[in-house]
Amino acid sequence: MERVSLALLHYPVRQGGRTITSSITNFDIHDLARLAATYGLGAFYLVHPDEGMRALATEFVSHWFDGAGRLFNPDRTAALEKLRIVRMLDEAIADIEKREGERPFILATSATERPKTLSGEQVAGLGARPLLVLFGTADGISEELDDIIDGYAEPIDPGTGYNHLSVRSAASIFVDRLHSCKYKPLPFLRNEGV
Amino acid sequence: MERVSLALLHYPVRQGGRTITSSITNFDIHDLARLAATYGLGAFYLVHPDEGMRALATEFVSHWFDGAGRLFNPDRTAALEKLRIVRMLDEAIADIEKREGERPFILATSATERPKTLSGEQVAGLGARPLLVLFGTADGISEELDDIIDGYAEPIDPGTGYNHLSVRSAASIFVDRLHSCKYKPLPFLRNEGV
Repeated sequence: MERVSLALLHYPVRQGGRTITSSITNFDIHDLARLAATYGLGAFYLVHPDEGMRALATEFVSHWFDGAGRLFNPDRTAALEKLRIVRMLDEAIADIEKREGERPFILATSATERPKTLSGEQVAGLGARPLLVLFGTADGISEELDDIIDGYAEPIDPGTGYNHLSVRSAASIFVDRLHSCKYKPLPFLRNEGV
Repeated sequence: MERVSLALLHYPVRQGGRTITSSITNFDIHDLARLAATYGLGAFYLVHPDEGMRALATEFVSHWFDGAGRLFNPDRTAALEKLRIVRMLDEAIADIEKREGERPFILATSATERPKTLSGEQVAGLGARPLLVLFGTADGISEELDDIIDGYAEPIDPGTGYNHLSVRSAASIFVDRLHSCKYKPLPFLRNEGV
């Protein structure tokens, strides 16, 4: 699945009805890098507009490249090779374009229905085009990005009335469903009820 | 899926070829409680033999019941209502037996093949029997529990040669696959290649 990449956005995201910038969470970095490595994705972009936050993330991660982490757990180092820390979504898109020779389809995810929602079949039908899957921190991706987003995936919603997965859980489930869809011609984002 | 429960084990688990007791990770508590609430599971048992560790977890969680957390994010409080902090796996089993009137099938998970591995069809075939799904922290569940375990699920392994998901990711993917299997008669733990 090397033509699929993930981007985790910290701006512009929603919280309490407003657009905010969220902080970086170290567990997100590790869990999503391990996910990207396990499923053989192209890259995992950690997107944050603040230079200080990006520097902090870079410092955390350096433990696994230059510090004792590489000796303690080389598997973690291998996973973090998937990580690219960037300032804006545009940088992630440009990086994929350079690598793949083609602009990726920008597929956003959300816990609630959004405009431009694609069915599982439609996502499966994107075929071999590079795919960049966006995940929002806080309460999700702000509408301000709707112009750059090509489509939203159907929410992961088992239908219990409670739908508050962590972004780590949602990204894991989404990539696993995407992986299944890639190898059989089935929709992978059905709402199946409970 | 209220007849399915999760248990996260901190002892006996493996690390570096030995059986150890691991520490509690606060992110595991929140991510697995949110997962249990989103999929409507019966309960999420956090299993730790050490009284001090259990007290620490109880204190962390109290922020969401007695502290400001309930006002700040009542959805988190709702998720944490799924949490039961227990000393040993036996306590989790006894609690389910009391609630369901029947001993649950003890299904363990592992990143590597183990004896007593069930196919997806076999797990689907367990039908309406209560199910307790075990996840190990550190490098996974120790063989010492094999006597109490009724079977292992097939590893989640996309086949890239790298297979090091966080327990948060693995539990999320497993529950989502279980949810799919519950509503269509398909194996949910196929190894589909990459």
